[in-house]
Amino acid sequence: MTSEPNDMPAIPIGIEDIVQAAQRLEPWAHRTPVLTSRTLDERSGASVFLKCENLQRVGAFKFRGAMNALLLLDEDQKAAGVVTHSSGNHAQALALAGQLLGVPVTIVMPRTAPAVKRAATEGYGARIVLCEPTLESRESTVAAESQRHAFTLVYPFKDWNVIAGHGTAALELLDQAGPLDVAIAPVGGGGLLAGTALAVNGRSSGTVVIGAEPANADDARRSLETGLIQPSFDPRTIADGLRTSLGTRTFAVIRQYVDAIVTSSEAEIIDATRFVWERLKIVIEPSSAVVVAPLLTARLRAKGRVGVILSGGNVDVETFFQGLAAQWL
Amino acid sequence: MTSEPNDMPAIPIGIEDIVQAAQRLEPWAHRTPVLTSRTLDERSGASVFLKCENLQRVGAFKFRGAMNALLLLDEDQKAAGVVTHSSGNHAQALALAGQLLGVPVTIVMPRTAPAVKRAATEGYGARIVLCEPTLESRESTVAAESQRHAFTLVYPFKDWNVIAGHGTAALELLDQAGPLDVAIAPVGGGGLLAGTALAVNGRSSGTVVIGAEPANADDARRSLETGLIQPSFDPRTIADGLRTSLGTRTFAVIRQYVDAIVTSSEAEIIDATRFVWERLKIVIEPSSAVVVAPLLTARLRAKGRVGVILSGGNVDVETFFQGLAAQWL
Repeated sequence: MTSEPNDMPAIPIGIEDIVQAAQRLEPWAHRTPVLTSRTLDERSGASVFLKCENLQRVGAFKFRGAMNALLLLDEDQKAAGVVTHSSGNHAQALALAGQLLGVPVTIVMPRTAPAVKRAATEGYGARIVLCEPTLESRESTVAAESQRHAFTLVYPFKDWNVIAGHGTAALELLDQAGPLDVAIAPVGGGGLLAGTALAVNGRSSGTVVIGAEPANADDARRSLETGLIQPSFDPRTIADGLRTSLGTRTFAVIRQYVDAIVTSSEAEIIDATRFVWERLKIVIEPSSAVVVAPLLTARLRAKGRVGVILSGGNVDVETFFQGLAAQWL
Repeated sequence: MTSEPNDMPAIPIGIEDIVQAAQRLEPWAHRTPVLTSRTLDERSGASVFLKCENLQRVGAFKFRGAMNALLLLDEDQKAAGVVTHSSGNHAQALALAGQLLGVPVTIVMPRTAPAVKRAATEGYGARIVLCEPTLESRESTVAAESQRHAFTLVYPFKDWNVIAGHGTAALELLDQAGPLDVAIAPVGGGGLLAGTALAVNGRSSGTVVIGAEPANADDARRSLETGLIQPSFDPRTIADGLRTSLGTRTFAVIRQYVDAIVTSSEAEIIDATRFVWERLKIVIEPSSAVVVAPLLTARLRAKGRVGVILSGGNVDVETFFQGLAAQWL
């Protein structure tokens, strides 16, 4: 057992849990491709391998964790159903996982959530319960739903089974790309970064693990520096998936297994998003671009073989296509 | 020998040329992935396999034909160099192929071509010669360059070696997806469709081959109906890669080996482009979407296993990212 401060939770999962999660997910999740780009290699001076979780089901890595958590429920829990709060990728991921397994899913969503997000989640058969756009309303609504219906809570990044599921992306990346000198994952709530760190540490302990976040939401960097979770109060960043602060569990993993945090400005994030669209011809959301931006700007002087996880591709292209329609129709 | 009308050129290439082109291209071109989409399968009622030539080098299938043509030049021709006219994907494809092989490339481009296209082509080391934006100026400029420097002409779709190179995409698709009931390729000048038809006919003669084009540029449909090449006068379509009319060679192949042409409206093309961006998370240009649109609208009632070639991903996203920057920076 590793010795930890009293206030740090023990870490009850390791590489075996991630390997088992990978086997469990095999019939359900895509083994997403790994792309490379000559231009990115030239610009960065490294050999970069991009793990395309934007091509995962529901367009984000979140499906891995949500599905793993549902597969690990017992039969009574599956029959009763699950609840979570999210207006983002976790909501759609849990909804699809529930639909595939016949588990009733309830999503608590602020009534200010975009109609398109709500419709996408309902499209996977989930029941939506609206709450006020406050932390208090969200938590009391989730608690009330959970108690009334005996729902199991499946949090986006507080749940060890979700974290283990997220780690399967890095496990695949190591299989597909071969040995890596550096692995980079975005960090918001920390589920993907924690899963990545556990997978990489278990499989390839010499690989440096780096978290990437917006400079405007650099709570993970400040948390690691101070040794205490630093809250993030509604930070202004285009990387909307990375506005959350760390949880105690993800912080415990990140503190132990992550070597550094690298940040990028909003302009750098937008430039990196565009670079990936234009050069790699894949759609990523700005939250994913934080792993590419520091390689383009050489803010991160990574050498050798660098694996990065492109976390998702759910971005609103409405204005772009409205523009095309206005010009052509 | 197949009997042909007197005015139709004989077809001097077949499946062997495409197989040889594939071997020749193997060290140079990407073996692009084939993606599938549950939603597209549900919407279309078919099992659709999308060959991602948007992920090809220079972002388009055009690299295959240009590279094959250059690899087949003799040493004197390589030393002297090549010339073509194009302001689109063929220009960049030929420029990159020349750069890789050390063959000097001259591109004749109308002086009205977007600066971004010119810069991209120059970025691959090609020499640009500007002409007036008229057919006469373009042809006389190409002829003058060719004569002055002993350049070999490498046309985008009149050259049999280019057509054979383009056919390698369908050959790979058949290898990757397995047997196909239907194969669909876009048709502008007809190089990709002709190459596809030759490959599919040679490998899998029971597969139905369909060309796809905008209803606003339906010259291929009209040409097949009338048995004569119908010109296309600067048609208004967002599918800018498909505004060209057929050449005599591509028409000869298409007439013999293509079963039908399917057309789509501008609104259908824009919807299909958006569908692929949003659901498959890959960037395609509208010219590519003509193969997806008829499956989404059920205008083509294709059953069984349908292979489609997504021809390219070179689309101007400037306005979209300007919008993001205006909102966030």
